[in-house]
Amino acid sequence: MRVTVWNENRHEQKNPVVAEIYPEGIHGAIANFLREEGLDVGTATLDEASHGLTDEVLDQTDVLVWWGHLAHDEVADEVVEKVHQRVLKGMGLIVLHSGHFSKIFKKLMGTSCDLKWREADDRERLWVVDPTHPITEGIGQYIELEKEEMYGEHFDIPTPDELVFVSWFEGGEVFRSGCTYRRGNGKIFYFRPGHETYPTYHNEEVQRVIRNAVHFVKPVNREYPTYGNHKPIENISEK
Amino acid sequence: MRVTVWNENRHEQKNPVVAEIYPEGIHGAIANFLREEGLDVGTATLDEASHGLTDEVLDQTDVLVWWGHLAHDEVADEVVEKVHQRVLKGMGLIVLHSGHFSKIFKKLMGTSCDLKWREADDRERLWVVDPTHPITEGIGQYIELEKEEMYGEHFDIPTPDELVFVSWFEGGEVFRSGCTYRRGNGKIFYFRPGHETYPTYHNEEVQRVIRNAVHFVKPVNREYPTYGNHKPIENISEK
Amino acid sequence: MRVTVWNENRHEQKNPVVAEIYPEGIHGAIANFLREEGLDVGTATLDEASHGLTDEVLDQTDVLVWWGHLAHDEVADEVVEKVHQRVLKGMGLIVLHSGHFSKIFKKLMGTSCDLKWREADDRERLWVVDPTHPITEGIGQYIELEKEEMYGEHFDIPTPDELVFVSWFEGGEVFRSGCTYRRGNGKIFYFRPGHETYPTYHNEEVQRVIRNAVHFVKPVNREYPTYGNHKPIENISEK
Amino acid sequence: MRVTVWNENRHEQKNPVVAEIYPEGIHGAIANFLREEGLDVGTATLDEASHGLTDEVLDQTDVLVWWGHLAHDEVADEVVEKVHQRVLKGMGLIVLHSGHFSKIFKKLMGTSCDLKWREADDRERLWVVDPTHPITEGIGQYIELEKEEMYGEHFDIPTPDELVFVSWFEGGEVFRSGCTYRRGNGKIFYFRPGHETYPTYHNEEVQRVIRNAVHFVKPVNREYPTYGNHKPIENISEK
Repeated sequence: MRVTVWNENRHEQKNPVVAEIYPEGIHGAIANFLREEGLDVGTATLDEASHGLTDEVLDQTDVLVWWGHLAHDEVADEVVEKVHQRVLKGMGLIVLHSGHFSKIFKKLMGTSCDLKWREADDRERLWVVDPTHPITEGIGQYIELEKEEMYGEHFDIPTPDELVFVSWFEGGEVFRSGCTYRRGNGKIFYFRPGHETYPTYHNEEVQRVIRNAVHFVKPVNREYPTYGNHKPIENISEK
Repeated sequence: MRVTVWNENRHEQKNPVVAEIYPEGIHGAIANFLREEGLDVGTATLDEASHGLTDEVLDQTDVLVWWGHLAHDEVADEVVEKVHQRVLKGMGLIVLHSGHFSKIFKKLMGTSCDLKWREADDRERLWVVDPTHPITEGIGQYIELEKEEMYGEHFDIPTPDELVFVSWFEGGEVFRSGCTYRRGNGKIFYFRPGHETYPTYHNEEVQRVIRNAVHFVKPVNREYPTYGNHKPIENISEK
Repeated sequence: MRVTVWNENRHEQKNPVVAEIYPEGIHGAIANFLREEGLDVGTATLDEASHGLTDEVLDQTDVLVWWGHLAHDEVADEVVEKVHQRVLKGMGLIVLHSGHFSKIFKKLMGTSCDLKWREADDRERLWVVDPTHPITEGIGQYIELEKEEMYGEHFDIPTPDELVFVSWFEGGEVFRSGCTYRRGNGKIFYFRPGHETYPTYHNEEVQRVIRNAVHFVKPVNREYPTYGNHKPIENISEK
Repeated sequence: MRVTVWNENRHEQKNPVVAEIYPEGIHGAIANFLREEGLDVGTATLDEASHGLTDEVLDQTDVLVWWGHLAHDEVADEVVEKVHQRVLKGMGLIVLHSGHFSKIFKKLMGTSCDLKWREADDRERLWVVDPTHPITEGIGQYIELEKEEMYGEHFDIPTPDELVFVSWFEGGEVFRSGCTYRRGNGKIFYFRPGHETYPTYHNEEVQRVIRNAVHFVKPVNREYPTYGNHKPIENISEK
């Protein structure tokens, strides 16, 4: 299984606070903890040619992890189209935090993906509402993050196929913060936490969720369905 | 409640078979049976200015019914964008038959919306799989159509929020033929039958389903949610 | 449409605090605000013969509202069985607050229906997570209750068919507090608020939700499906 | 991982046709193909003490497979109650064919689980409607069974959490024939085919589905949630 971690990688260049928390970039931090369990992991960033997502890279990617925020508009439509096609063909996709507003997530959802937000050091507590879900393996009843950006309802997404986590925020809001979707032959997991100025991706439970999600969204090994004109399998009567 | 029935209205101009079945166009036939129960119904077609979907028309429309086939590509992106925004703001949308490949449906679904098809006079039997759904009011255990175009699985749509009908086809296929979705503040119903060369929209049970669906997808009367930066409702502790 | 409001009616007899808040009982309070909009409403309580739910009453009831807490075990299995059958045949059911542990709700859900709870004057804020749902008509972005009993996740219910509200509690928990289910030909709405020592059912938004829910869960007018041995509709080939 | 295959094992004793198809019993056939891929598999049957489902067996079982038909009523309520508790605690359950009417399935579903049926050598074709689902790994677009018992809609089950297969039957019916459910901490898969007088469990694709399902429903390794009175995590203000 091949995982590619995509990151906009802009905050890390501009903001020393972020650079200190993630000296190898958010992509580097995520790639590192995925590699720890033996996964084959590459990274790709916005400022590389084709944003690092060449046809070759995409074709070999089983699961794509996506973090973006400042520069969603700079992601080329052509690359978004290719990622979209790969998801429909079966590639898993994990969209993190501010990726809710990425072109690829909005295209897959069909909605505005808008939400309420606040940067005010809210405490966040992500409660597990689906204890049967493999994404929660090894996770307690909730994950507590001392400080995070707040995201609040209404979150303008389609009803999740599976709702795994619901967040409580200190300032009085709730949020559907762990959601799975199926699109075409691909599976998607949206996971809320991960504002760039907090060390969220160093949290072991957050890492565990993302590791579990990689296994959950991986492609199913089967042939792509056929579409278009279809000969009858049974006889059709004269009428 | 104001209903607008949109139709591509091209088959009716080109094919005498279609023109004979639907002398007032597919839009005219649908508008007529909706008016019979006292609804305020207008029509709009592709070749009108703005495809008949001006800002004024869209703003006043509570439920939009959509039939298209040959000319999906001729629908202007700008109009599609406006219809999309109206659905997200609460307008109901009923997509019929070959409308599965319309720009607006694909944009709302986020998938290819592809399927298997065959024009071979298959018998179709639409089985009710959700007898609690108001869209099935007055409908028997199934609706039988002597001849219809076949649509077969895999239908590349997101998992429906509610699956109301599943079709059996004589040639050996099945199809999820009555599906509801929620997108933003709007509700959507996709209903499979209605190939232009068959008198499907003259079938009383098909008419009943579409009438029921108009009531089901109508907007809910409430204020649109607020999004963006949000002040805390509760005190946030110093950390 | 005929609504029956069932109440255990024990706290009202034992606890002067409850009696003062609900001088006509919780059932009386609910029946009153339902009657205000012209519904035909009756009440039934535990200590009546057959708990007030005779065959005649049940047969005429389109929507049953259920409040119970102290005496779930005193509800006769025979009555529970009859209510269950009526729901499967199409009767709507609204289960309130501590009714999560009623025999009828557990029987319909198939799970323990257990949860976390606390009586500590928590502030509760019920956020609307599905703005398309008719149950939210006329409701703002959230309903705030100054003091309520806390119910917290994990709530051991099947995944709701529709999740309408998620509650935030001051003490740090969240809860899926407005959930719909379909069972047989009947629709069910579970609504969390309503601890007996608070004036929750006098809150206008809570009343609005319950009124909306009555309309949502009402039976669909259609024939009950047939089951059992079924003759083929099409010819079956010799093999 | 420990799998237990439970079988009523009555048809095999009474009907030479069945005994010839399944000389080791349906349970033996299923256990054999599960063992082929290295799973640790035991069997249990109705006429053993405690139906072979002692506390020790149940405690060690990660996934229970269930086939029953003639003698659902002979399964002791006490055993059903224990299996129910084990599912809620996380044990996976695979219910096959006529097991739709078993006490355990009805208890977990909360509905009648009734359906239409016919023994008339119908051809069955199970179409994959969810190509993202791991249960479909290695399966083509459909599984064709030359002769099977027909099960037809309406199938009186709760809306499946995931609908994986829909069956086409020669006589004109459709059926939701592969359905997953979550109950408590456990996952359930209902799979339709497997009438005792046909060699369905010798079909390699049917075997593949059941093997895939064993992996899908296996327990998630995490602690069981706590329920009941819960101390506040955050301070609750004076009111």
